Amino acid sequence: MTLRVGIIGAGPSGMAQLRAFESARAQGAEIPEIICFEKQAEWGGQWNHSWRMGLDGSGEPVHSSMYRHLWSNGPKECLEFADYSFDEHFGRPISSYPPREVLFDYIKGRVEKSDVRKYVRFNTTARWVDYNEGTEEFTVVVEDLTSGETETHVFDKLVVSVGHFSVPNVPEFEGINSFPGEVMHAHDFRGAERFAGKNLLLIGSSYSAEDIGMQAHKMGAASVTMSYRSAPMGFDWPGTTRERPLVNRFEGSTAHFADGTIVEFDAVILCTGYLHKYPFLPSNMSLKSKNVLYPGNLYKGVIWQQNTNLFYLGAQDQYYTFNMFDAQAWFARDVMMGGIVLPPLAQRNADIDAWLNRQAALESHNAEADFQTDYLRELISATDYPEFDLDTVSELFKEWMRDKDADILGYRDNVHRSVMTGTMASRHHTRWINAMDDSMERYLNGDSQNVDTNAMATLSGFGQSPLIA
Amino acid sequence: MTLRVGIIGAGPSGMAQLRAFESARAQGAEIPEIICFEKQAEWGGQWNHSWRMGLDGSGEPVHSSMYRHLWSNGPKECLEFADYSFDEHFGRPISSYPPREVLFDYIKGRVEKSDVRKYVRFNTTARWVDYNEGTEEFTVVVEDLTSGETETHVFDKLVVSVGHFSVPNVPEFEGINSFPGEVMHAHDFRGAERFAGKNLLLIGSSYSAEDIGMQAHKMGAASVTMSYRSAPMGFDWPGTTRERPLVNRFEGSTAHFADGTIVEFDAVILCTGYLHKYPFLPSNMSLKSKNVLYPGNLYKGVIWQQNTNLFYLGAQDQYYTFNMFDAQAWFARDVMMGGIVLPPLAQRNADIDAWLNRQAALESHNAEADFQTDYLRELISATDYPEFDLDTVSELFKEWMRDKDADILGYRDNVHRSVMTGTMASRHHTRWINAMDDSMERYLNGDSQNVDTNAMATLSGFGQSPLIA
Repeated sequence: MTLRVGIIGAGPSGMAQLRAFESARAQGAEIPEIICFEKQAEWGGQWNHSWRMGLDGSGEPVHSSMYRHLWSNGPKECLEFADYSFDEHFGRPISSYPPREVLFDYIKGRVEKSDVRKYVRFNTTARWVDYNEGTEEFTVVVEDLTSGETETHVFDKLVVSVGHFSVPNVPEFEGINSFPGEVMHAHDFRGAERFAGKNLLLIGSSYSAEDIGMQAHKMGAASVTMSYRSAPMGFDWPGTTRERPLVNRFEGSTAHFADGTIVEFDAVILCTGYLHKYPFLPSNMSLKSKNVLYPGNLYKGVIWQQNTNLFYLGAQDQYYTFNMFDAQAWFARDVMMGGIVLPPLAQRNADIDAWLNRQAALESHNAEADFQTDYLRELISATDYPEFDLDTVSELFKEWMRDKDADILGYRDNVHRSVMTGTMASRHHTRWINAMDDSMERYLNGDSQNVDTNAMATLSGFGQSPLIA
Repeated sequence: MTLRVGIIGAGPSGMAQLRAFESARAQGAEIPEIICFEKQAEWGGQWNHSWRMGLDGSGEPVHSSMYRHLWSNGPKECLEFADYSFDEHFGRPISSYPPREVLFDYIKGRVEKSDVRKYVRFNTTARWVDYNEGTEEFTVVVEDLTSGETETHVFDKLVVSVGHFSVPNVPEFEGINSFPGEVMHAHDFRGAERFAGKNLLLIGSSYSAEDIGMQAHKMGAASVTMSYRSAPMGFDWPGTTRERPLVNRFEGSTAHFADGTIVEFDAVILCTGYLHKYPFLPSNMSLKSKNVLYPGNLYKGVIWQQNTNLFYLGAQDQYYTFNMFDAQAWFARDVMMGGIVLPPLAQRNADIDAWLNRQAALESHNAEADFQTDYLRELISATDYPEFDLDTVSELFKEWMRDKDADILGYRDNVHRSVMTGTMASRHHTRWINAMDDSMERYLNGDSQNVDTNAMATLSGFGQSPLIA
């Protein structure tokens, strides 16, 4: 009987799994029966951004945490597919830090070319999964969100590719109940225009705080304060921006910080991270993890230890993204189709432990980039996913971090060379700090947008001029 | 074997079910084994308000749609429990339109007195329900949100009491994606302070729009525009407030209305209602309904036609609330315990059809109030729930509607007489329009708060003075 594979989620990871199977089929292999369930009306996961927050039009939790004017916060040369280059998609060099719509177009281009859309059941959400130890089958109950009908599907293998940057981690803060301004989690942030002239507090000290903070600065926030628990990020922030220790409590619109200072704010954005959450999985199949480079209990970061018919994609914290999901998806495919034979449990445990020990010893961001590079190397060497110059990509991550340290507002204007094609990125016509229209049309065809930000500030009622490019 | 009853949700309906069983136990009956699953850390459902929006601290959808400064929008004399009066709880007359915290205290008082908390599993959410036709048993899979562990429970009867004012109905609007200001659903509205001086658009023409609109006016909104699909509400709005037809599209911060007018707004609140949504139920047990006084397929508005072991409480649109949930819970209890024998399916169908036909012919709000009054009368007459003067309550609903027509900002200052105790409500020390502290402490012990709203406006930076009391 043909193997039956269920995939939950058609974001970048689920799309990678579809492409992995299609790649095998194109080479003559007999591939499994595949159904991929996607709760949204379109694929793309995080990249399928909408204005909605909280619950979506079907009453399901909104998946995407992205917002208007989001640009990639890492070089596209670090995430390029090894089997579908930016050159192939765009037919010309583009810049190194494209806006969301441009990157979304790129990842869609590959799967559209591959004719894998037929495997996806859109507007369909997984409600509950059972595993029968005797028959070694998964029973997956889904709801067709359009009709409201419940369906039951049976699979031999199950791929969980729902991501882990969608369910906000929202801690409690004393007194926040009566804070009169906006209070939201970064997940629900959709644009910074309305913070022009406002004093904004961001609680958190990782990518969300950094990125939303600089977005708010760009859009004319009067001040941006970022509050850290353990250590400040320490970038060379613009004059509007500063870091403070943790907020102990709120009193009306004022925040009381751990250093004793008291500051009044107009709005608060909780950049407090995300939860691993798999509400459709019983606890014995549900990954419990912080956002780390190597979650425990997953062999090669992919295969559930107690049930090797269960696969997770993209469950790691991510330096690498799209090409890491590919490496994982190709690996999962070969395990499912028998091309890779798994070692016994104890040996798998030892392998996991070795990675966990190495992870525990990581002491710098550079070491983290190398760690994930080595992880990819191991995965890629086991499959026919095209090899690429991982060491150069790892160096690019380090260069990217140096670029950020040097110029947090300007690093996105830098250009880098593709290890896939050797193509040097083109300088974008407009610097990030000046770009106020991030549509693909303007990105590809626009003129230089060397906006006089002071004039702009006046026109738009911006209270404070951002850094001039 | 003792009957096993599962209850999903410990809001007012679930609490009523617990109280109904406890009332039978106190009279010497042998009551079922009961487990009530409540996903929040406290009971009270809607009344257990928090500052959170979207997803809660466990990553579950936030249940409550209430907000700071919410006062009852109907007289408390219409919702009073027949077996636990306001007099018994507060020991003195209080006003007719108490703030949220005061009403919450009242409904908690009854169940705390009844010692039914022991039946509730807090922080536990229902994930999936199966029904076995052969054994006539429900299998209910729940997740302990604290431990993350999955548990399976088996019941003979299942009560669904999760409410239907928690999952927002959020339609799409052309161009809303680029609206630069706040866009939220009424479900996520937590307070109007920050709309002082702002131009606010509310899309919708029912209770949410009316209530949030007047709240925003009270807090100093520069203007409040309410947009209707079929007909305006037509209250005698304050000067800040007006009604317009539906929004066809947005362009930046401007809304284009169906009458051709174009208006710029600072924020948009979608008062577009709620969805019946039961993600833990298979479609053959899941109620599909608009918000109506008599959903189809529920005998006596409570019992699922195709499976009489399944009960819904509070699934109706509501003139009556707490005492209607009681009437339903007492009825469900007696059906479960055998005191009420159900007629055969065809007869139940005929009964439902008669109600649906009558509902279809309703032509006024007054007729609706009478309709639900008759519904309660029928339920109460079938059980030992204390009878009360329903006709007088029905008249009170009509008086309340007249009061609103006469003075949308002042109707909450009126007082009414309890049909349970004959007690006349006391006038509150502060008129609603002037009350800026709605804590229970202040409600019970405060002095008159005859704020000069003009002075207040100046002090707080309010842009426009609300109506002077």
